Amino acid sequence: MTVEPTLISLDNPVFRTYLLTAGIMLLKLMLQPWMTVVRMMKVSAGFRNPEDMKKSPLNPNPQPNQTEVNEYVDRSRRMNLNDLENIPGFLSAGFLFVLVDPPLLFAQIVLWTFVAARAAHFVAYITAQLHDVRATFWTFSSLSVITMAGYVLIRAF
Amino acid sequence: MTVEPTLISLDNPVFRTYLLTAGIMLLKLMLQPWMTVVRMMKVSAGFRNPEDMKKSPLNPNPQPNQTEVNEYVDRSRRMNLNDLENIPGFLSAGFLFVLVDPPLLFAQIVLWTFVAARAAHFVAYITAQLHDVRATFWTFSSLSVITMAGYVLIRAF
Amino acid sequence: MTVEPTLISLDNPVFRTYLLTAGIMLLKLMLQPWMTVVRMMKVSAGFRNPEDMKKSPLNPNPQPNQTEVNEYVDRSRRMNLNDLENIPGFLSAGFLFVLVDPPLLFAQIVLWTFVAARAAHFVAYITAQLHDVRATFWTFSSLSVITMAGYVLIRAF
Repeated sequence: MTVEPTLISLDNPVFRTYLLTAGIMLLKLMLQPWMTVVRMMKVSAGFRNPEDMKKSPLNPNPQPNQTEVNEYVDRSRRMNLNDLENIPGFLSAGFLFVLVDPPLLFAQIVLWTFVAARAAHFVAYITAQLHDVRATFWTFSSLSVITMAGYVLIRAF
Repeated sequence: MTVEPTLISLDNPVFRTYLLTAGIMLLKLMLQPWMTVVRMMKVSAGFRNPEDMKKSPLNPNPQPNQTEVNEYVDRSRRMNLNDLENIPGFLSAGFLFVLVDPPLLFAQIVLWTFVAARAAHFVAYITAQLHDVRATFWTFSSLSVITMAGYVLIRAF
Repeated sequence: MTVEPTLISLDNPVFRTYLLTAGIMLLKLMLQPWMTVVRMMKVSAGFRNPEDMKKSPLNPNPQPNQTEVNEYVDRSRRMNLNDLENIPGFLSAGFLFVLVDPPLLFAQIVLWTFVAARAAHFVAYITAQLHDVRATFWTFSSLSVITMAGYVLIRAF
């Protein structure tokens, strides 16, 4: 086994592109639950656990219907679930993609397509656009990850 | 800190096995939502958002019950959730496992067990086999990831 | 592209800290579903699929209400979903964090904060503490991952 010039280095522009796009998507992944929290506090509703209806500093006026599904809060939860279905796959596929040394331009297109598609998906979801609009953006992000996973497989065979 | 012969190389058969199994599982992870989409379109039901009941090219005949839970569509969503509970853990544990340099045969058994168990789980789920059958296959995949995580911990101590 | 002293080595104490914390969190991620299984078996309830109500060795006395939501089982499922919202992000952010070579003490604080916060969150959730308690621990774990993702972004620019 020989020592190869490392692909995992800030000197490798493909890795750098991955770090940027992965960092952005990690922030998106971790900030969506904060939107859920803000919305829950705003409407004092959409809680998930029986104990969340108890009186507390964050819930000074408990109501019996606070654990019912609240569309305003639930939209953020559904967006979070959609993130979970897409972002961890992107993070993993993108990293393995870097390790099989793809051409720089190809990598830049595929990685940034994911970020752009997720940003557009976010806007379409939060503003409740037609399903078709959301589905279109989701398709781009999904194809980005599938492309990287396929490329990894081809290189590994 | 010395430069070690890199484990992250296509010359390392353990890494290569990981790339193959991870690539396959990434495709599985990303393709399950496509099954959900196909099923939604087929029955024009099982949508999740209020706006999905609006008339659109993909939904030419809106119905008031299109956002109710539809078992045919929901089965694919449950399979997706099950993937989310298992595949990201596998991708991460498998990669760290490679980095602590396990014996090749051991790595091949553990990594391919996961893939085989998930394939069998998929078939059992889609054909609605008994819970016991599904649980058996799930157990193998779960033990595969637990084994890798445990091995990583032992090596890191 | 020059060969750098590898960061991915057991000789790098930052990487070692990551391996330990990641291994622990991977075990947590994979063991939570086992708690769900144990609880399902204990109360013979909280199943998710229509076929789970069929008579089988693990379900000798089928009941028509076995697929209704059961709070005892569902609590473990909600804890699992909460893990999914947090642990894969930690695993990925933590690894990229190692790769941009943070100061050791900083890395130890951020990585172990996540583990400690998740352990406390687990105890608060399983014992049904007030929402405010759970939210406090969750905040620490979330900030840990956001810090690492932000640090990666700063280094990658």
